Order: sequence, then structure tokens, then C-alpha cells
Amino acid sequence: MTAIRSETIAERFTRSAEATDSPVSPNADFAAWFAARSAAHSYTVERVPLTELPGWGFEPGTGDLRHTSGRFFGFTGVRVRTGRGDWEQPIIDQPEIGILGLVTRDFAGIPHFLVQAKMEPGNTNLVQLSTTVQATRGNYLRAHQGLPTPHLEHFLPPRPGRALVDRIQAEHSQWFLGTHNRNMVVETGQDVPIGPDHRWLTLGQLWGLLGHDNLLNSETRTVLSCVPVAPPAADTGDPYRDALRRSLAGPGLDDDLLSWFNDGKGALEPVARPCGLAEVGGWRLSDGRIGHESGRHFEIVGVRVEAPTREVTRWSQPLIEPVTPGLYGLLVQRFDGVLRVLTHARADAGSSRFTEFGPTVQCCDTGDRPVPFRAEVAAEPGPGIVRHDSLQSEKGGRFLNAVNRYRVVELPADRPVPVPDGYRWLSLRQALDLMAQPDQVNIQARTLLTALLSTW
Amino acid sequence: MTAIRSETIAERFTRSAEATDSPVSPNADFAAWFAARSAAHSYTVERVPLTELPGWGFEPGTGDLRHTSGRFFGFTGVRVRTGRGDWEQPIIDQPEIGILGLVTRDFAGIPHFLVQAKMEPGNTNLVQLSTTVQATRGNYLRAHQGLPTPHLEHFLPPRPGRALVDRIQAEHSQWFLGTHNRNMVVETGQDVPIGPDHRWLTLGQLWGLLGHDNLLNSETRTVLSCVPVAPPAADTGDPYRDALRRSLAGPGLDDDLLSWFNDGKGALEPVARPCGLAEVGGWRLSDGRIGHESGRHFEIVGVRVEAPTREVTRWSQPLIEPVTPGLYGLLVQRFDGVLRVLTHARADAGSSRFTEFGPTVQCCDTGDRPVPFRAEVAAEPGPGIVRHDSLQSEKGGRFLNAVNRYRVVELPADRPVPVPDGYRWLSLRQALDLMAQPDQVNIQARTLLTALLSTW
Repeated sequence: MTAIRSETIAERFTRSAEATDSPVSPNADFAAWFAARSAAHSYTVERVPLTELPGWGFEPGTGDLRHTSGRFFGFTGVRVRTGRGDWEQPIIDQPEIGILGLVTRDFAGIPHFLVQAKMEPGNTNLVQLSTTVQATRGNYLRAHQGLPTPHLEHFLPPRPGRALVDRIQAEHSQWFLGTHNRNMVVETGQDVPIGPDHRWLTLGQLWGLLGHDNLLNSETRTVLSCVPVAPPAADTGDPYRDALRRSLAGPGLDDDLLSWFNDGKGALEPVARPCGLAEVGGWRLSDGRIGHESGRHFEIVGVRVEAPTREVTRWSQPLIEPVTPGLYGLLVQRFDGVLRVLTHARADAGSSRFTEFGPTVQCCDTGDRPVPFRAEVAAEPGPGIVRHDSLQSEKGGRFLNAVNRYRVVELPADRPVPVPDGYRWLSLRQALDLMAQPDQVNIQARTLLTALLSTW
Repeated sequence: MTAIRSETIAERFTRSAEATDSPVSPNADFAAWFAARSAAHSYTVERVPLTELPGWGFEPGTGDLRHTSGRFFGFTGVRVRTGRGDWEQPIIDQPEIGILGLVTRDFAGIPHFLVQAKMEPGNTNLVQLSTTVQATRGNYLRAHQGLPTPHLEHFLPPRPGRALVDRIQAEHSQWFLGTHNRNMVVETGQDVPIGPDHRWLTLGQLWGLLGHDNLLNSETRTVLSCVPVAPPAADTGDPYRDALRRSLAGPGLDDDLLSWFNDGKGALEPVARPCGLAEVGGWRLSDGRIGHESGRHFEIVGVRVEAPTREVTRWSQPLIEPVTPGLYGLLVQRFDGVLRVLTHARADAGSSRFTEFGPTVQCCDTGDRPVPFRAEVAAEPGPGIVRHDSLQSEKGGRFLNAVNRYRVVELPADRPVPVPDGYRWLSLRQALDLMAQPDQVNIQARTLLTALLSTW
């Protein structure tokens, strides 16, 4: 009985994925609406030395950067030991499960998702499309003492509608120490009063918008990655789309695949231990910022924000600012008429599950270190067909100007691909099965798998 | 294709579950063999004050109890904050993934599993039935400098046989800080030379032995809980067995259930932070043992072991000794002809995933605190039918005399059961689906679910 119902949810969302336009939010109006909402928000983001950041200070002893109230998030240090090398780094300390939620409702028989134009201080363009609700535990317990978060009642028990999706997934494990979010989609059958910043869009529209630079924020991207869809019933005659369909149909997850992944965990055996921010070797505070002595990786910087249209209108906070843009790439290839995707088992400082499946390429500042498959993903023209190419911002509430290139590249079917240790081809079904479990697939790979799905 | 293969594995193990005797290891010989093996091992376990434990010492500053080599495990402290209360406690610090593995091979067309009579210093009766291999990372990297672990080659890559089961699960989360094991079943088609301590048994035989006190060690129990079986094809006419069969057939896991579980995580929002052992409030070292000032919970004690038949023949180590025996109980009930099991979402100090599904009752030393459903599980005679009742030892390599009562009790179908916050009825299928994911079901519930399965 439940199996049938689950299938119905996936099929229902599939109808939404196939709807590339909407009667309630026509594509023709979108650009004007989004431009108007972006212009309607006034805000200023000004850099402030960490040493002068109002409300924030370095804790005696540990040197951790924390809010004087003891709330919100902070920065601490972490020491990582792995089978492939050791390192130390600062990391965001926010041990909680936040809520990232989309309300869904049918219009003209098609499921729509409620998104909002939302400003975050770290976004390059400040305003992006966010989920219906994006709430840290502090938000929903009102630690900020701001206005109540609109629509939050749909996500907290006793919620009026049914949760169709409710998956806990990790934040960016390179920079967050075990922070998680519930990725939720909750249905409603009733009218939802919405303001000018909110908009109902179909899954097909959202997939389309994922192809635009810096438009869907990382919260929207991760929730979208948890929305199940069913493979189309039949081939279309387009070899690429049919290979994608077959990949979505199977093969599914099995213990053989888990065994390979677990072998990798055994070989890497990462151990991450928190330490005081002051104890992290190679990192130092100078000019009011914390950076690595090599000038690489990222900096922790302070900003003062004024945003009259936010729940809290004025605040100061630290943000992570990467030194260089990153490249996140997924290589795919047709094999016997079925598309396969090349994943990489990664150990990052904040992974609570030891290792996660990442994309083929995930690199920021590589220095002189060779990165496997970087050329195949980045070269222009490269060896393959570019199936997706966009710039996306990471979580603007914690990252400043963290804009990364996301690419899905299909290699020619006849090109031999030597697969190094730690890399593995998966079907799309296997990747989505893994995403149905907590903490198996990292947030970068989740975005890229959604980008791949969106090309069907 | 893979779906069919997975089903075949479950069906194959189902044939083994239905085989309650074996041509190669007849039940008639078992008791004599086990008695002989128990007698063949000579060993002494002698208590030693922690302050005089050879090779172990308290680390300056933190006060952590560690081996002077820096290897093996240690004891540190942890501070836990939850929505239902805060506490501090000592905890085993062993951040690694060990291997618990069974080799499986067909005899007369029936899959058998290779177990061994193994001594552990903390076991009440010292010798119990263990998995083919039980290896900490230290073991398999030879940190102990002892003899090589027999049969380990079946579990490390490149392994000769296929891994039919490979699931990472947490250790006892009340006492281990995020320690995990790979629960593996690896097939072999070849002769495996075995010594007198090893024995091939069917799943049906192992399920039968689970009903005996202190016979299957906790390592064997957790691997058995990961062995998939298929529901019998048809009703037998026995209402209890048929209700169990239907529960195993479904309904399966859905996001509704996950949403309830995630709501509980949101309400409890546990945060566990390591601290030095010396900083743990309420615990103190006296008479060479570490205990709680109330005299409750557990003690950390030292032992010196001589065991000429082990890989390492002589060593000293600390062990956790519970102050009182524990009670682990699972209530089940027939509802519309389908058996359902009552689970409890628990937050323990070492849970890496915030909360886990535990059994209905899991209590050790409760003091005056009322424990829901304790009476229903423990009363003699009680309101229900006792479907399983045994004493089982927890991991004898870390616990001393940790013998707990495991009970599965079926309540009458017409008995109303008010379900408190944090408790939920599941089908057996849902419970097993959750067990197929990492870290969702705790080790006590895994043993009880296997005990329930063994009654089919």
C-alpha cells in the first residue's frame, strides 16, 4: 500500500517536472518580477574587522569566535587525520538541525512549490530564490527576537499538511562541523496567503532556473535534490534522454556498492577532532581577518548588515570568504545505452559519516596539486558535451562571494576513462537511492545530480 | 537486474533461516563441542586499580585515560545537552570503523555461517560464540603486534568472495563516542580451513542459539541483525506467525515515518561535546575505579588478562562495569492481523545521528524515575505473551559483567496502548528498512528485532 503511495508522490512530482511553465506564475513574467523584488530590497553590507565586530568576540582560552549571547553559530578549529594526509582548519560550529522547507500545492492539477526572493549578506547579487522557509533552530525558537518566520507553521508539528519529503542532509562538510538540515516538502490543500516576495513555481520551472547563474540559492538546491521523480515511462528516441531515463530506472543500490564505499572509508579512516580556534596551526588573525599563512583556502571576515526587509533589520556576523572560485564537476558517460555518473568518495573536515560521495571534481584552491578529471570538466572546448554549466552561490548566510562553477559534462561513449582509486561509476538510480539516506551524498553532488536530472 | 539479485540474497538466507539443523554441524553435537572449546581455553582475569594498570595512564590536562602507546581506545568525557535534560559522563573514545564479519558458504545447498568460540575478558562466562572475524582497526593494522587475525583476508580488499552484506552501524551509543563497525557477510565458494574453535552454522541454528543465555556475543548479534531475509510466501494458519509474516511484508519506510522521527530530533536536539575526563562533573576516581558519586550508572575498572589462546596472550585494559543489570524490551501487538513493534526515539551520548530508534524499554539503573512500559515488559506473569526472553552480554572486550535481560512481549490485540511522545509503532518491514540505513536503529533494538524475527 505504502509502496503505491510513494510511487504516487514521485509520479506527482514528475508531472510537475514536466510542466516547464505555469498558469499562476508564467515564465513570461518571471524576469520582471524577480528584478522588481531585487530592487525592492534595500540593504547594505559593509566589511568590519573581526576584532571590532559588534556582539562577537574571541573566547578566552580556546580563541573560538562566538556571539556574546552564546547563541547563533561560531567558529572553532578542527584537526583532521586521514589515510591520505592530515590537516587543521577553522570550521563553523553550529551543532543543530535547521529546517529548509518548500510548501507544495496543486494549481490546475500541477504541483507548485512556494519560493521566495530572499536577501542574504554573502550572496554576490544579494537577492536569490530561496525555499518557503529557511530556518535555523535559532530562527524558529526566536533567538533572534525578530519577526516570526512566515509559513514556519507548515513545518513544525502539529503541521496542517502531510510531509511528502523529510530528509536530513549535511551542510557543506568542508566548512561546517556536523551541521544538518531537514529538507522538507509539505503539502497544503488550502489557500496560503503570500506576499510579494513569494511565488509558486513548478518543478520544471525550478529545474530551468537552475541553469541561470546565482539564482537558486543553495538551500533551494538541496531541497530540490530531495524531491523524488519517477523515470519517464518510455523512450523518446533521443539517445541521451533515453540513456538518462534508463539510468534513473536502475540498477539500484546494493551491498556491492556499499562495500566499495565502506572499503574507501576503511582506507581513509578519517578522524576529525574539534580543537580551539587559537590552536589551529597555520591560520592567523591579521588585518581583522583570519586567513591561512599561505594565502590559500579561505578567510573569515566580518560584515555589518542593514536589511530593513529582513526579520532582523540590522546585525553583524562573520562569513567565510573563499580565496578563489571553486569548480564542481560531474562527468557522465553512456555505457550500453545507460548513462552513468562518476562519483568520488571524499573525506571532509565536518563529515559526520566519515566519508561522503562527492562529484567527480570538487576543488577550490588547488595550488600545484593535480586534480583528477579537472581538464575533462573545465576545458573549453573539452572532450565532451556540456550538459549543464552555471555559476552558483553557496549559502549566503555563512559565505561571502562563494561563487562556484557547476558543470555536468558527458564524455563520448567510446572514450576510455581510467578510474582512479576512490572513484566509482553509479547509475542515477543508485545516486538517488544514496540521497534517500542521510549524509551519504554531499551538497555539491546533490546540486549536480539535480542539474543532471533537469536535462531530461 | 539488481533488484532480482538482492531478492535472491534474501531468499537464499531465508532458506538458511528455515534450516534449524545442519548436516555439517548437527545440533546434537553442539553442546559437547561448545563445552569442550570453553574448557580448552585457559585464562585469568584479575582486577587491577586503574592507577596501577600497566601501559595505561591519565593524560595530563584532560585527565583522559589512555594507553601509553597512543593506540587502542581510551576514555574521555562528554557533555550532552538535550531538550529533555543535560548530563555529563565518561565515554569510550575509539573513533574508528571496526570489522565484524561472517564468512558464508553453502553446505548441502544451505548457506552456513562461520562462527568461533571466543574468549573476551568481560564476558561472564568468558567464552561465547563470535563472528568469523571481529577486528578493530588496531587488529587489522596489527597494532597489537599479535598473531594475524585468522580469516581477515575474506573481508579486506581485494577480497576473494563477494560481500553480500556490508552495513555500517553504531556501537552502544550510551558508552561509545561515535564508534562504528562494518557488519559484513562475505561469501566464499572454496574450502576454508578452520580450527577447532570454528563451526559452520545455519541462520536457523543461530536464531535458535539466540534464545540461550550469554551464548551469542554482541558482535554476532549485530551482524545477524543485518542479514536480510524474505517473508515466507504464504500464511501457515498460525495467527501469530502469519501476523509476523505480514509485518515483514510491509508497509515499508515512507517520509511520513521519517518526518515523525525528525520531529523528535527537532524537539530533543541533542548536542554532545567531548570534554576531558577530568572535567566530567559528578564522576571521580577512588579505590582505583572511576564511578559516579551517586553510586549509580557504571564504573570504569581495570583488569589484567592472561589468555594463552588469544592473538595477544597477556594484556591489561580498562572495562566498563554497569552497576545494575539492564532491561531491554520490545513490545509487539497484533493490529488488524499485522504485528507491529513499539519503538522509542532515544538520544544517547555517543549517537552520531542525534537520535536513534531504540526498543520500547531500555533501562539500566533508573533510580526512582518511572520508565514507560517497564511493567508490561518485566512483570511475571505480565499482561502479554513472552515471545523471547534471554540474558545477553554486551561486548566483552569493553564491558565487564554487562548482562542484560532481552525480552519480546506480545500484548493482547484488544489491549489499548496509550503511546507517549517519542514512541511509535512500526511494521517489522519499516524497522528492517531503517536498519538498512546507517545509524538509525540502536544495537539493543537490533538484537531484539532479530529475536522477534527468530520466532517466525
